[in-house]
Amino acid sequence: MSGERIIYLPLGGAGEIGMNAYVYGYGKPGQERLILVDLGVTFPDMDGTPGVDLILPDISWLKERRNRLEAIFITHAHEDHVGAVGHFWEDLGAPIYARAFTAHIARLKMEDAGQSPETVRTVSPWPETVEAGPFKVGFVPISHSIPESSGLVIDTPQGRLVHSGDFKIDETPMVGEAFDRALWEEIGKPGVKALVCDSTNVFSLHEGRSEATVGPEIETLVRDAKGMVVATTFASNVARVKTLAEAAVRAGRSVCLLGRAMRRMIEASIKTGVLADFPTVVSPEEATQIPRENLMLIVTGSQGERRAASAQLARGKFQGLTMAEGDLFLFSSKTIPGNERGVISIMNAFSEQGVDVVDDSSGKYHVSGHANRPDLETMHTLVNPQLVIPMHGEHRHLREHVKVAASLGRKGVVAVNGMMMDLSGNDPKVVEYVETGRTYLDGSVKIGALDGIVRDRIRMALNGHVIVTVILDEDDEMLGEPWCEVMGLSELGRSNAPLVDVLEEDLSQFIGRAGAKTLTDDDKLEDGLRRITRQTTQNEIGKKPEVTVVISRLA
Amino acid sequence: MSGERIIYLPLGGAGEIGMNAYVYGYGKPGQERLILVDLGVTFPDMDGTPGVDLILPDISWLKERRNRLEAIFITHAHEDHVGAVGHFWEDLGAPIYARAFTAHIARLKMEDAGQSPETVRTVSPWPETVEAGPFKVGFVPISHSIPESSGLVIDTPQGRLVHSGDFKIDETPMVGEAFDRALWEEIGKPGVKALVCDSTNVFSLHEGRSEATVGPEIETLVRDAKGMVVATTFASNVARVKTLAEAAVRAGRSVCLLGRAMRRMIEASIKTGVLADFPTVVSPEEATQIPRENLMLIVTGSQGERRAASAQLARGKFQGLTMAEGDLFLFSSKTIPGNERGVISIMNAFSEQGVDVVDDSSGKYHVSGHANRPDLETMHTLVNPQLVIPMHGEHRHLREHVKVAASLGRKGVVAVNGMMMDLSGNDPKVVEYVETGRTYLDGSVKIGALDGIVRDRIRMALNGHVIVTVILDEDDEMLGEPWCEVMGLSELGRSNAPLVDVLEEDLSQFIGRAGAKTLTDDDKLEDGLRRITRQTTQNEIGKKPEVTVVISRLA
Repeated sequence: MSGERIIYLPLGGAGEIGMNAYVYGYGKPGQERLILVDLGVTFPDMDGTPGVDLILPDISWLKERRNRLEAIFITHAHEDHVGAVGHFWEDLGAPIYARAFTAHIARLKMEDAGQSPETVRTVSPWPETVEAGPFKVGFVPISHSIPESSGLVIDTPQGRLVHSGDFKIDETPMVGEAFDRALWEEIGKPGVKALVCDSTNVFSLHEGRSEATVGPEIETLVRDAKGMVVATTFASNVARVKTLAEAAVRAGRSVCLLGRAMRRMIEASIKTGVLADFPTVVSPEEATQIPRENLMLIVTGSQGERRAASAQLARGKFQGLTMAEGDLFLFSSKTIPGNERGVISIMNAFSEQGVDVVDDSSGKYHVSGHANRPDLETMHTLVNPQLVIPMHGEHRHLREHVKVAASLGRKGVVAVNGMMMDLSGNDPKVVEYVETGRTYLDGSVKIGALDGIVRDRIRMALNGHVIVTVILDEDDEMLGEPWCEVMGLSELGRSNAPLVDVLEEDLSQFIGRAGAKTLTDDDKLEDGLRRITRQTTQNEIGKKPEVTVVISRLA
Repeated sequence: MSGERIIYLPLGGAGEIGMNAYVYGYGKPGQERLILVDLGVTFPDMDGTPGVDLILPDISWLKERRNRLEAIFITHAHEDHVGAVGHFWEDLGAPIYARAFTAHIARLKMEDAGQSPETVRTVSPWPETVEAGPFKVGFVPISHSIPESSGLVIDTPQGRLVHSGDFKIDETPMVGEAFDRALWEEIGKPGVKALVCDSTNVFSLHEGRSEATVGPEIETLVRDAKGMVVATTFASNVARVKTLAEAAVRAGRSVCLLGRAMRRMIEASIKTGVLADFPTVVSPEEATQIPRENLMLIVTGSQGERRAASAQLARGKFQGLTMAEGDLFLFSSKTIPGNERGVISIMNAFSEQGVDVVDDSSGKYHVSGHANRPDLETMHTLVNPQLVIPMHGEHRHLREHVKVAASLGRKGVVAVNGMMMDLSGNDPKVVEYVETGRTYLDGSVKIGALDGIVRDRIRMALNGHVIVTVILDEDDEMLGEPWCEVMGLSELGRSNAPLVDVLEEDLSQFIGRAGAKTLTDDDKLEDGLRRITRQTTQNEIGKKPEVTVVISRLA
């Protein structure tokens, strides 16, 4: 087919949970006009990305085609959907569209990154649409765990696509719009070529629970508590924060919000009108004057983040407030896989303070923001697409989601990051594999995941680092002795002498034995010194360190 | 009281799950004769202990009193109970007692560490006892997730103590002795001063399930599978390995064991008679010749360990065997908190290969080896001690377990590592705080957790490392220019010039400005060079690196 085609190309989020970035295109092959849906981040960890500040998708492909990019659409304000807008705006330069609350957060992100917030345009929900080249895009309200989440209707000259965004089916979400079955059915009516659909909870077999089920449980818990109550949840889960605050008020407690993200989100919600009636809050200073049994703190740090309010309370004090024996700490949240250690360490610190910790294990104090398997089935049925393309999931989620589609008699296809699909015909096909990957924000610079920089850091952490310095004079004779510095290695080894002494002795002998061929050739000399250093260290302490050799030649 | 006393002193395992080591003593204060119960390890992770091979308890206190140590008793052969015997035997030098299977594994541990296996003595179970100074110690069979687990009856001149060991209440454990209620009641009859009791599952509110419930579920799963079936579990869970193997045989499949630990455990079980009728197994070479639908592999690596069989199969090939589309992989195991990332990455790799992964989320294919809350209550009631001392748990587990004791009207006390309790009178009291901690096996040497060695490695991983070399001549004048090497940092920064160039320029200027006071004083000069290096790097790339300064002075 030499005519126009529809393409779909995930650059992030398909094959992982995080850093969502989905490209849609329409036009002649290689000349498609493009839109980008979401531009998020994911978070580093000590295992694979020590010292990294933030992980961004590698958007080189899109950057090279920025003249074809019509617009960026942000479905909702979670970090994994909006977090990278500021970091990449210079590379892309297209207008950013979002609904009011999301746009507000996107503007803050732009400002944080030193960009102008004015490129972010607020749009009204469906049935209004935005024209972007050959696309008409509408924001359809959908329930999730943050206000004003949207699925997108993406109309092309060859038919309709639906991008679900992150969603759950919640008809009583407490804050924001309820899931509207009739509306989604309506949207499916004209025929939908493909539903690109959230896969996060495909392994959860029971129907999802409404946000409304959490309130009564929290109220009982707070009412029965004797000391201070402290609760944590994602700051962006505005409905939950409101539920927590209202439970406090009903139990005769003053509410204090702790943590920058918590205040920022509540302010954003009030400013953009998504939150009308949030209880009055007291400042941390005022809170210190209120009897503990009349106080409830709502704090950041549900994932055990070291610098958030929860972790700081666990270590001692935060803004003048401390926990005490008989207090209650509630995790109104789920621990994201990989964050268990941090969360558990906070639980134990509270235990040592005599604080009772309640978490989600009973299922009473938290509900997920994503559609479970039966809810995904409902969505497939309502939208009734020809094709289901799972997104927002690891490979295992995408694969399972295709099975769900098949079980309802629909075609599904696993398309992971970098797989460009042509959706034009009746059979979706892979037309290109695009290089994708991860970009690290490391301090103030961006580095590539495969640059070797972080790999070197991991190696130093695993193996330690030995620095060898030798000075050679004009005649290529060693001046003095080789000098070793050691970082991250035992000082004493098998010989019961300092490791650096043994190293310097062995290196000295090596240089003494080395011929002119070695001594005059920096590469040869460096190789030899590195080899001896690794051998000796291995013999002495059983580790093969990273070695940096510095050869100085006096001219 | 100037007479004899009973003391209890956990050196590891109380306030953490791992590296169990519990001291009991009897005698005049400061002259107590001592026994040690268990001597285990715990496992390192990238977060806090990168590059470390194994974590051992700090037993300095006991080492300094080795002349008072009568014996070491090992309750069962899990790594967190027996793993350190070889590493510490030279420091302690006391005879090691264990039942046959445990003794067999302990001897292997001794050999691995280059120690004589003959110090390990095999003992028969209760009612036989071992005399160790003032103590009489009996090994009482108890069900757990490894053969021949034992609780210990520790009789002292002032009464009986019971150390539960790790246990569950399982009357049909498939391999090994069933939990014997009558026996434990009998043991409680003469009166028990204190029950020192496993706390791992105190937050699990339902009654524990028997190992026997797993078999039928696994059988159904294996029978219905179309391709090859691969199952992983802890190698030491011999009952489970047997259940898996028998399910294979019933489904007409040959069994192949993969991974050193898997073969070692089954061999140990057969040699020591705990396993009489294990199905015939085929070698990996033979397995490659068997049709996939007639084959089942039982493999190591249930926790996602990078070098174990599961992870290697996920990456490609292990001993000539590979996975294929339509195969089934079963995690007949629970993921220990902290290991989620590794396990999930294996699941996704299998998903990419088209392999169906089944895990424990349905609750059908795994049961825990530890007593849940109702089972702990049963144990308290059977043994009926005056005092409950929770062990084998993080602080939150110990604290909750004391609440369980209280709910049944018994005194309980949280005693964490280093807290020496006097158990003689009616009221247990803390008589001393002993310094405890962790010792790291790092390559072939032991280092202290607080030595700063691993801290330096973590810092290099987070911040990168800059090495600055300067050479000064006889007149304290710089010879040539300062030289920088950088490891783990971006090569380009804000100036768009190589970071090392900018660094060398700034350092050069600093030395040019520096007076004789600085240039003649190594400490001053080093401080200045480090400060400039950190400043410049912060300006250029937004990171403050670790800095090693090498100053060479030509004499």
